[in-house]
Amino acid sequence: MTLVSEKTRKHSEFSSSNSTQKLKKLAEKPFDLTKEGNLTPERLAKFYAESCGYKFLYGTERVTEEVMRTLVDLAGEAKALEKMEKMQSGEVMNHIEGYPSENRTVLHTATRDFFEHPNQAKPAAAAAKLSRQELDKLKAFLEKIDKEGRFTDLIAIGIGGSDLGPRAHYIALEKHLKPGRKVHFISNVDPDDAALNLKGIDLKKALVVVVSKTGTTLESLTNEALVKARFLKMGLKPEEHFISVTSEKSPMDDPKKYLACFHVWDWVGGRFSVTSMVGGVILAYAFGIDVFWEFLKGANAMDKAALTPSIVTNLPLLSALLGIWNRNFLGYPTVALIPYSNALLRYSAHLQQLDMESNGKRIDQKGYPVDFLTGPIIWGEPGTNAQHSYFQLIHQGTDLIPLEFIGFKESQFQEDLEVKETTSQEKLLANLFAQMIALAKGQQSDNPNQVFEGNRPSHLLLGKQLTPFALGALLAYYEHKVAFQGFIWRINSFDQEGVQLGKVLANKLIERFAAKRKGVEGTSYPLGDSLIKFFNLGKIKSCRHGL
Amino acid sequence: MTLVSEKTRKHSEFSSSNSTQKLKKLAEKPFDLTKEGNLTPERLAKFYAESCGYKFLYGTERVTEEVMRTLVDLAGEAKALEKMEKMQSGEVMNHIEGYPSENRTVLHTATRDFFEHPNQAKPAAAAAKLSRQELDKLKAFLEKIDKEGRFTDLIAIGIGGSDLGPRAHYIALEKHLKPGRKVHFISNVDPDDAALNLKGIDLKKALVVVVSKTGTTLESLTNEALVKARFLKMGLKPEEHFISVTSEKSPMDDPKKYLACFHVWDWVGGRFSVTSMVGGVILAYAFGIDVFWEFLKGANAMDKAALTPSIVTNLPLLSALLGIWNRNFLGYPTVALIPYSNALLRYSAHLQQLDMESNGKRIDQKGYPVDFLTGPIIWGEPGTNAQHSYFQLIHQGTDLIPLEFIGFKESQFQEDLEVKETTSQEKLLANLFAQMIALAKGQQSDNPNQVFEGNRPSHLLLGKQLTPFALGALLAYYEHKVAFQGFIWRINSFDQEGVQLGKVLANKLIERFAAKRKGVEGTSYPLGDSLIKFFNLGKIKSCRHGL
Repeated sequence: MTLVSEKTRKHSEFSSSNSTQKLKKLAEKPFDLTKEGNLTPERLAKFYAESCGYKFLYGTERVTEEVMRTLVDLAGEAKALEKMEKMQSGEVMNHIEGYPSENRTVLHTATRDFFEHPNQAKPAAAAAKLSRQELDKLKAFLEKIDKEGRFTDLIAIGIGGSDLGPRAHYIALEKHLKPGRKVHFISNVDPDDAALNLKGIDLKKALVVVVSKTGTTLESLTNEALVKARFLKMGLKPEEHFISVTSEKSPMDDPKKYLACFHVWDWVGGRFSVTSMVGGVILAYAFGIDVFWEFLKGANAMDKAALTPSIVTNLPLLSALLGIWNRNFLGYPTVALIPYSNALLRYSAHLQQLDMESNGKRIDQKGYPVDFLTGPIIWGEPGTNAQHSYFQLIHQGTDLIPLEFIGFKESQFQEDLEVKETTSQEKLLANLFAQMIALAKGQQSDNPNQVFEGNRPSHLLLGKQLTPFALGALLAYYEHKVAFQGFIWRINSFDQEGVQLGKVLANKLIERFAAKRKGVEGTSYPLGDSLIKFFNLGKIKSCRHGL
Repeated sequence: MTLVSEKTRKHSEFSSSNSTQKLKKLAEKPFDLTKEGNLTPERLAKFYAESCGYKFLYGTERVTEEVMRTLVDLAGEAKALEKMEKMQSGEVMNHIEGYPSENRTVLHTATRDFFEHPNQAKPAAAAAKLSRQELDKLKAFLEKIDKEGRFTDLIAIGIGGSDLGPRAHYIALEKHLKPGRKVHFISNVDPDDAALNLKGIDLKKALVVVVSKTGTTLESLTNEALVKARFLKMGLKPEEHFISVTSEKSPMDDPKKYLACFHVWDWVGGRFSVTSMVGGVILAYAFGIDVFWEFLKGANAMDKAALTPSIVTNLPLLSALLGIWNRNFLGYPTVALIPYSNALLRYSAHLQQLDMESNGKRIDQKGYPVDFLTGPIIWGEPGTNAQHSYFQLIHQGTDLIPLEFIGFKESQFQEDLEVKETTSQEKLLANLFAQMIALAKGQQSDNPNQVFEGNRPSHLLLGKQLTPFALGALLAYYEHKVAFQGFIWRINSFDQEGVQLGKVLANKLIERFAAKRKGVEGTSYPLGDSLIKFFNLGKIKSCRHGL
């Protein structure tokens, strides 16, 4: 595409920084994990950090002490730690200089700043106060409905940040489900999503939460209408079953239509909203307010760790730097997230939004197109399942994939069995450790099909058990990793202009569908109409065989 | 890693072929979708194919007629169609020349060759006969248990091909669930997988199917032992509840231990086994044998389409060629699979195994290391959800990602509502079409944050409705796409040597865990022990804050 003249300059701040130059040189010969004597117990003990109950092992990354020192310098040149402090204090971080932009503070950390050493800056303290009020409101609401005992199932309607985060964390804590309760998520505008999820639910006992920050999200309003119609058909009053989570004064902030309305604010981004009422209503309903409180406590602990100056304790910064090494200097386009914990089954779907929507950007905060790679593609499924699936390609494919492993010493349920002298949990961890070593060291062989080239970098975040506290810390760990990378790249990690064009064109196409439905002919949008025509070619021709 | 001397040669057959040279030239200036007048209704009508009830639209790929002709030549030079014919006829396709290899036929197509024009070649006909016997056995078994009415829930124990394929297809057809039935999948060796899945199941009414081709899979045997222990604790007899799917004469082919044993053979690869008894027992139990029969019929129809000589009807070949264009000539490392159908929620997990385990290879079938890129990374989540998640990066990130869209004219449940003059299904399709156009054409703007560079290639597989037949066709479409790519790359898509090293090291580590448990000291595996030691550092130190 020939672009209209964009602002240009010789080099971005990221590309021209001293550390970047030095890292480029260092990346010409990255540390060779396959060389005899290179990957040792001593190395594992050296490349090690710890915070909030997590150990972080990264001896299996292709780094040296010099690389790590230079990465820390890179963060220093970008003032990454100062920016984290500013973000948590409530300075305006969501903006682009010289162009219209959202111009907002970024204060998801305030939605859990209820513990030791709360942030004293005025905007942060004010945001924490508002957040605490909503939490207290939620507590009172839950006590009331607990006492009434009217509800069993919760139907959660939301999409994007109002779905992926709450859902991934709900699945991660299902062990803590209050007896008789269950949450059903409806997100997709595909009517089959609602149809399948509503099957078998007793609507008389169902609470429905509609989550939309703006109160105008196409998918969620459509699904709300769809579910509401079901309630009316059953002779039930929606206003006695529906609650909302939305911004103050949005169309959904309406006590006439909802049993209760909980608030979020423009300083909490959708993908950063799990600890606000967006996640709060769902998680506290499912697990109780005490479990949610522990979850907030864990997130808050990692928020504080993200302010510490050393990568020996600042795990999000450490992880951000390793990611930048792999992305910008070793050139890997993707990152695989492999939790060896089935409870984290949908964590990569949450991280896809968190990371890719935040850092999949083409300009920096001054409006210049970037001259380096920004956010990578995030994907992955839990181990050991993944070992029986795409690990073939990770070991022997032609592309290199850095891996982020997550593991826990103990299982959640502690329902285990010793089979052939080891428990399942031990087998799980044995597999995790074995993969780290196999990927790093590789294997030589006379049979070319049994050659493993090795040097597949990975690191491991190892916790004691996936408790609500540990899960909260994990949430904040990734939130701040993403923020640190954005700070170092000097991009705005907090907007999402890239989703707008599709929305605009979708509305144009919806209009064309509506026009066709009313029998209005015309071709106000020939390209769109030509696609609709394909879909309308009447009876689809069958195949010669088999039909 | 310094590799021991491997066979070398100047160029691979793929790299040195005439068509490859020509395609390299053509890729220097790929078709510009953003240029005014380039993406037109006429173009969409031209780049179009159709088979088995699916329309295939690829005008939004960066191809010209010359590119397509040359890609077809590339397939011709590789004798791709002849190899597909050989595969379906039962010649030995799973082998590496000059080295020990599996040396097997690849006959998953025989597990559904029960319809018009069955393959007449002896190995194929013999395999189809065996498959039909097992299917009849399954039918009789299901009729018997239907009559007895003993079972409601099915617990499916398996991993990899014994889990991902059956599970993705189960979810896709949940609409057809027989009343009162439900399937629970236990795959991960993580004990929490079993613990969570067993919660609330009435074991008295549960049928358990253990699926392992070899009868020796670590995860599945461990989970079988775990579930069996629960049955015994309840005073139930496992041999009255457990059935197996395994190879003849495997340790699990034992009528004393199982109510019934169903067979698979070494000519059905795990990731290609959905239409064998591996998928059959689960899907036919859940939906009834007639639904499974329709599913087989759809797969068989696409098998036959994969033998047709023209890309106007041979959709798997067409898709394989577009994939090779994007991968080897435009250089894209990943492919995003975006079904606009929530029923295909877990399809990308199935495809990750199918594609990445098949084609994530480093040597060709003659044992030479490849000098080109093989299988890409597959990932993706359904639309419209994805639009609210990682689509930011797809539109505005620094890496280009080719997309494979899937859509259907009609929903499965047909429970829809008109909101603001359109149904949800229309809104869903409007979004799908809008994304195809937005990604291809992009947008210019004076605001650099609203610039979309476009030229993001995609294509669309559009069906009438996701019926069992359509799902079967979809399964085979991807199976044959993967096989065609392997044929053209001259690699062996049917083995998985790359998963062995991890297994060997895991067993070493499991031994170390067992030794520790018995109090045996020693360091027969220092690197492994050092990892175990990390995990055993006693009480994990807490964070300064929040604990």
